[in-house]
Amino acid sequence: MKTNKIINRTFEMKSWKGKKEMTESGFHVAVTGATGAVGQQIVQLLAQTNFPIRKLTLLSSERSAGTVITYKGKDIVVEKAAPERYEGVDIAFFSAGGSISQQLAPEAVKRGAIVIDNTSAYRMDETVPLVVPEVNEEALHEHRGIIANPNCSTIQMVAALEPIRQAFGLKKVIVSTYQAVSGAGVQAIEEMKNQTKALLNDQSIQPATLPVKGAEKHYQIAFNVIPQIDVFSENGYTLEEMKMMNETKKIMNMPALKVAATCVRLPVETGHSESVYIEVEKGNVTTKDIHEVLQKAPGVVLQDNPQEQLYPMPADAVGKTDIFVGRIRQDLDENNGFHMWIVSDNLLKGAAWNSVQIAQSLIKLDLVKPKN
Amino acid sequence: MKTNKIINRTFEMKSWKGKKEMTESGFHVAVTGATGAVGQQIVQLLAQTNFPIRKLTLLSSERSAGTVITYKGKDIVVEKAAPERYEGVDIAFFSAGGSISQQLAPEAVKRGAIVIDNTSAYRMDETVPLVVPEVNEEALHEHRGIIANPNCSTIQMVAALEPIRQAFGLKKVIVSTYQAVSGAGVQAIEEMKNQTKALLNDQSIQPATLPVKGAEKHYQIAFNVIPQIDVFSENGYTLEEMKMMNETKKIMNMPALKVAATCVRLPVETGHSESVYIEVEKGNVTTKDIHEVLQKAPGVVLQDNPQEQLYPMPADAVGKTDIFVGRIRQDLDENNGFHMWIVSDNLLKGAAWNSVQIAQSLIKLDLVKPKN
Repeated sequence: MKTNKIINRTFEMKSWKGKKEMTESGFHVAVTGATGAVGQQIVQLLAQTNFPIRKLTLLSSERSAGTVITYKGKDIVVEKAAPERYEGVDIAFFSAGGSISQQLAPEAVKRGAIVIDNTSAYRMDETVPLVVPEVNEEALHEHRGIIANPNCSTIQMVAALEPIRQAFGLKKVIVSTYQAVSGAGVQAIEEMKNQTKALLNDQSIQPATLPVKGAEKHYQIAFNVIPQIDVFSENGYTLEEMKMMNETKKIMNMPALKVAATCVRLPVETGHSESVYIEVEKGNVTTKDIHEVLQKAPGVVLQDNPQEQLYPMPADAVGKTDIFVGRIRQDLDENNGFHMWIVSDNLLKGAAWNSVQIAQSLIKLDLVKPKN
Repeated sequence: MKTNKIINRTFEMKSWKGKKEMTESGFHVAVTGATGAVGQQIVQLLAQTNFPIRKLTLLSSERSAGTVITYKGKDIVVEKAAPERYEGVDIAFFSAGGSISQQLAPEAVKRGAIVIDNTSAYRMDETVPLVVPEVNEEALHEHRGIIANPNCSTIQMVAALEPIRQAFGLKKVIVSTYQAVSGAGVQAIEEMKNQTKALLNDQSIQPATLPVKGAEKHYQIAFNVIPQIDVFSENGYTLEEMKMMNETKKIMNMPALKVAATCVRLPVETGHSESVYIEVEKGNVTTKDIHEVLQKAPGVVLQDNPQEQLYPMPADAVGKTDIFVGRIRQDLDENNGFHMWIVSDNLLKGAAWNSVQIAQSLIKLDLVKPKN
């Protein structure tokens, strides 16, 4: 029997005031990829939000099967994922890589489960809703069994931009990201820490994971910056950059939105930051107008007071489900241009928390019912 | 007698093919701030480039006076900076903070020296040329005793953008920086390393230097990102951001250029990176056109081959005097928009090397002559 490797983090969840207790009439929930960085967070969030669960099935690859994870004081043995494991499942979270989702998500759907997929496998599929509940919850009505959870760096940006779009319109977005290594998995975190220790002791290092596991070349991440996340596409953009650009248009339902991304990996464990430039449709908008809109925005916390040196930073955002926005400034040349700085925990709102929120929305909209 | 704290780094200097040896007829050179991060690099570069020096005077604050620095095998004792130290000096480098430059640079000029000032004291003074030799060497002809060396993050950007402007015109620049802690001095480097060690050992930390020494609040830099460099101005931009915007317009002599900056500090020791979006004047420019221009650009090294995972990174740029450019991509929405990634050693091209290059240009243009 393997050790429970779950990361113990306490989350602050302003957005969720769930009161439903675990009951006999709750849902049969499955988490595929339960031992991974995001899967562990999903299990913990289900417990902390008292998600109405009748039965919890935890699944993983063969390698991690047998691991024991504690859910509300009960030990659950992780099983090897396979089609028959989804019999009777109502809600199936997937976070075990794109190929597992491609293989098993249709099997889960075939057995009557609604899949909430945290990989990129179905995100750009026209028949699959790509959902950030604060932005396009209504898209859930069109689901045909699979709902896709967007890319981490996209989620925090669109959730901050949607209230601005609603109030003032949105024409253009240029984003440069400052992304944490946990987005590349547990191995990348280990690599960063080991490299850091080695370099502080004047020892040599042998990069083997970042920027992309399995790529031909690997580079130092400790005390360095790598302007590559995911592999390159033909046009010179990385897939991470293409995801941010395409997913933003799909989630905001704005195919004509101008959006460009540069995605960069940094020696930060958790918490993605983004330097975002936008142009709004409406004229004469002020920084104060944007403050007022973001102050009321769901899931968003405004941290913007230069005189008090108040602005978002990843070290402050870790373990929180909110999206933090600050450094909002009007462009000095473009009257309708604004710059801002958006930070969020990439494992929470960027992944696990958004997935759990989608499940909450499905219940709220009466789109899922327990089979028993 | 204090220890020689000089950092030993070997520089690769593609751009400088100086052949003048140290002779009796060389210059009397003074370096004020000789024990600082940038001052040490200036002394080392003067030696490595065989700058024609007859006499080298090294100056510092009272605190560092007495330090011994080795120049071409000779020990030189650093003296306390004072007006009379500039008697007979031909070229005076200043890198000891803005207030020292304000106080002593005019004293050096009064005594017949040409000052090359690496602080922000005179940069926006209309009577002071602000020079990056690859961009506006001719501005040196208008000097009245003081020449200003631009801000580190500005230098690497304008040197990469100038050849593009010459070929295709330039309308707009939006930059997000990824800046190393050495830009904030030796204490900031120590703070980052000590915090990193403490956090890896689960010990608590007490930030005391970054983002701004003497500011009210200090934040963790290890495994974190701080979106503040220098203090805030009234309009919500930091002074670092205002420097990048104003200095770029001055150096490129383009008061109407649209330029916006977001400046961010990272846990990297040396090497600034920049995610830069530009719009050029000319239509139908391709990424290949920009490659061709940058391949021939002085001081610039093109590192741009996505299929080979070739792009600039600070860990590769450290100790080199060049500016590295890669990740060049045409914007998918704006035909005349391009994204790129610019990296350089902030202590070299960003500071010491640009200052030494200015001195070389003064000799080349016959703007300085040895007094003896």
